[in-house]
Amino acid sequence: MNNIEAFFKPRNIAIVGASANPKKAGNVILRNLLAVKYPHQIFPINNRSEEILGLKCYDNLSDIKDQIELVILITPSNLIDVIMADLEKRMETQNDVRAIVCAAANYGETKTEEGIRRENVLIETSRKYGIRVIGPNCIGVIDYVNRLDTTFVETSLKEDQVGRKSGVSFISQSGAMAASLLMWGASRPEPMGFNKFVSIGNMADVDFIDLLTYLEEDKDTSVIGLYLEGYEKSRLLVETLKRINLKKPVVVLKVGSSEIGAQAANSHTGSIAGSDVLYDSAFKQYGIVRVETMEEMLDTLNAFDCMTLPKNSGTYILTQAGGPGIYCTDAVSESKHLNLVDLGQAENERLKSILPEMANVGSPMGYSDITAAADVDHHINSLELISKDNEISNVLFVTVIPTFLDQIALAHKLVDQIKKLPVGKLVYTTIMAGEYVREARRILEMESIPTFNSPLDAVRVASNLNNYSEFLRRSVKGGIAYE
Amino acid sequence: MNNIEAFFKPRNIAIVGASANPKKAGNVILRNLLAVKYPHQIFPINNRSEEILGLKCYDNLSDIKDQIELVILITPSNLIDVIMADLEKRMETQNDVRAIVCAAANYGETKTEEGIRRENVLIETSRKYGIRVIGPNCIGVIDYVNRLDTTFVETSLKEDQVGRKSGVSFISQSGAMAASLLMWGASRPEPMGFNKFVSIGNMADVDFIDLLTYLEEDKDTSVIGLYLEGYEKSRLLVETLKRINLKKPVVVLKVGSSEIGAQAANSHTGSIAGSDVLYDSAFKQYGIVRVETMEEMLDTLNAFDCMTLPKNSGTYILTQAGGPGIYCTDAVSESKHLNLVDLGQAENERLKSILPEMANVGSPMGYSDITAAADVDHHINSLELISKDNEISNVLFVTVIPTFLDQIALAHKLVDQIKKLPVGKLVYTTIMAGEYVREARRILEMESIPTFNSPLDAVRVASNLNNYSEFLRRSVKGGIAYE
Repeated sequence: MNNIEAFFKPRNIAIVGASANPKKAGNVILRNLLAVKYPHQIFPINNRSEEILGLKCYDNLSDIKDQIELVILITPSNLIDVIMADLEKRMETQNDVRAIVCAAANYGETKTEEGIRRENVLIETSRKYGIRVIGPNCIGVIDYVNRLDTTFVETSLKEDQVGRKSGVSFISQSGAMAASLLMWGASRPEPMGFNKFVSIGNMADVDFIDLLTYLEEDKDTSVIGLYLEGYEKSRLLVETLKRINLKKPVVVLKVGSSEIGAQAANSHTGSIAGSDVLYDSAFKQYGIVRVETMEEMLDTLNAFDCMTLPKNSGTYILTQAGGPGIYCTDAVSESKHLNLVDLGQAENERLKSILPEMANVGSPMGYSDITAAADVDHHINSLELISKDNEISNVLFVTVIPTFLDQIALAHKLVDQIKKLPVGKLVYTTIMAGEYVREARRILEMESIPTFNSPLDAVRVASNLNNYSEFLRRSVKGGIAYE
Repeated sequence: MNNIEAFFKPRNIAIVGASANPKKAGNVILRNLLAVKYPHQIFPINNRSEEILGLKCYDNLSDIKDQIELVILITPSNLIDVIMADLEKRMETQNDVRAIVCAAANYGETKTEEGIRRENVLIETSRKYGIRVIGPNCIGVIDYVNRLDTTFVETSLKEDQVGRKSGVSFISQSGAMAASLLMWGASRPEPMGFNKFVSIGNMADVDFIDLLTYLEEDKDTSVIGLYLEGYEKSRLLVETLKRINLKKPVVVLKVGSSEIGAQAANSHTGSIAGSDVLYDSAFKQYGIVRVETMEEMLDTLNAFDCMTLPKNSGTYILTQAGGPGIYCTDAVSESKHLNLVDLGQAENERLKSILPEMANVGSPMGYSDITAAADVDHHINSLELISKDNEISNVLFVTVIPTFLDQIALAHKLVDQIKKLPVGKLVYTTIMAGEYVREARRILEMESIPTFNSPLDAVRVASNLNNYSEFLRRSVKGGIAYE
């Protein structure tokens, strides 16, 4: 056992650099741990406070009598020698610490002699006792399922939004991108949950391979997201991703795709980015989904987690309005992984018979516009009819929800209809009205039904899911078990 | 005078089909007109109600003694003969109506004999009296500056958000896309204003050319957005856009770029979409900005309205974090209209001297990362220094705003700094934290400083503004007056 688990389910945590000042990171970490109701003990280390947020403070790690499995470092890096001496003292007697998250910056990433020396002190002391280290220079670790949040990012999730089931795990090489992703995810109509979320920092000890290998075997992780700037062992990384991707999807956002971007990446991570062309061709060959934006990353991870895999690439556009439908059609046409499928004459006739007279059915092929004259039942009944076609695994459902349509009623009926669908049959629900349909979207997302703000977002996700599904059909012996 | 003005500044409005049922479009129109505080009289025509929302109802148009300049039709289309007879009666005596917005659908767009007949009745009656018609099959007309909103889209803008100065005018061939754009625009940190907003519907009378020509001369319109599906007189349209674009920017989202999308467009508008390749090459040749998404449309229109034009394509990326900076750099590299510019050794040294020790200055060229160690003044002072470089007209400013940084203080200081900049010097401000920085973004947007959710959005807008600016420098005799 490589101790990686201690980062996610630690028994008791000490925070070196806990602060009484609410504007300091060392205070936000405490607040986050309390907010998620971390189920074990928290020990703030701060020799200028008696207690912080009701938690008794200690002067040193070695003063704490109880067991500590995880230590978080959020002190200025020039204190590292003192802290490591304190840690040594503890380990010589109690020998209990298994993991360190070093959130503080100003270590090896500065490329200064002193920064590198400090990082070496941290790592060498830890290695001596078999302690694993994440960081330095990271924003921390989250495991909402186990009620752990060591970050200093304020996403102010409500209590009922933590501890909810999610299979999405994410690794970020950038703390800022990790923080943005958390805040963007929490800004969705229903805040997005994560299973395990790691800002990996300088990778002075725990690196991509360690974490990916752990997540590969982690039964709670259904899909892995990776934000990648560069990694020296690029070949090993690609081989690892290839192996994992056959078991669970891996979604990658790799920056540094341009020459200048690669220079910026090199100057940031200090490692060689590796040729983007090589990464890209490997991703394509091994069916690894590469996304272009963080928004697409969130949407895609969420969809992989909530939806089953499509059985085939057959696609239908069911729209409540012409403009949005055409907009969606252009995007589907650009995708290499989606094919519009005709319902056939008999089904087209049936569809016509249950829709408003103005509806445009089947023109072009694989496309129907139910028009603004459609009521809630027109939406639901047409969706049901189209979903029954064996050739269609992907329904792109697009509506603006006119003022005169009850958005809450539609959302509830959509939940009922979509929940009835068999494995391998997917509905991508787009409601194009920003904040005005937040509640309708929330009703769907609470039931693990992904929703989209724009049909272009929905098409990108449908394309990614079908890309992966096609890859598995080609690659996995005996095919995928759909029933 | 072609009466187009009567759509935007009508003296008194009659609403045929006004409804007492809050779920009906004919009720929402009334609510919207009251919400924007339309400054003249409103006459609901409804023979089953005494009054609606405090407004006295009338049985017929011809019963109203006061002057009416604009009539809105939101009745079922099978009543058109009766309504036109009523209109004729009124015009024979009072001869005051100058404009009709026919919001109702089920006219010519159905391609049925009866639908076409109804449309003919509407248009022929109107022509007889020189009345101009927008629609049928549209969501209406907005002029927030003149406090007019004839749509049935609920954007529930607050009173102080209406009547504010905006130079953005927009024409949409799709009512649903128009409604989405309105709701997306109103969902921004600070709701986006429009000067004139027209859902053009079937163009049975008023068409693209009429409206564009009106907006060309309209002093209140600084930029024109156009959502286009297809138009029979494509050559005339391109020539009109070409002419206008030399005076004020025109931003176009044209759908039907794919073959199947074009089929869907044809089946929706009933007109031939025209070759997308021809449109696209004309747009490129005439410097007309073509956007790919509605989000890009909103961002670009807002930027053209709020910002001056960049003097040169020189660009600098000033980021508070490495990951977002690299992400931004890749996007800049892909743009054909932005060039990263080095500050030069002396300025690089000065920049280093005012930033935290960890900061990465000028590597790669045209890029600095002030890091999470940067306080508010580091943000502002580095922005000030970079903005002074004559070769740099575009600063892409990217920050996540860490928890320990005061986002409100930063926003206020950014306002002060950006407002001081001379004409032709632009800062594109990206704050990557979703709902968590809504207030900071609102502070900037209230002062007409555009903000972005992602650096990719900012780069797209910078690219569009530089594309247009380059075109003007090439095309306009004597150049652009910057000072």
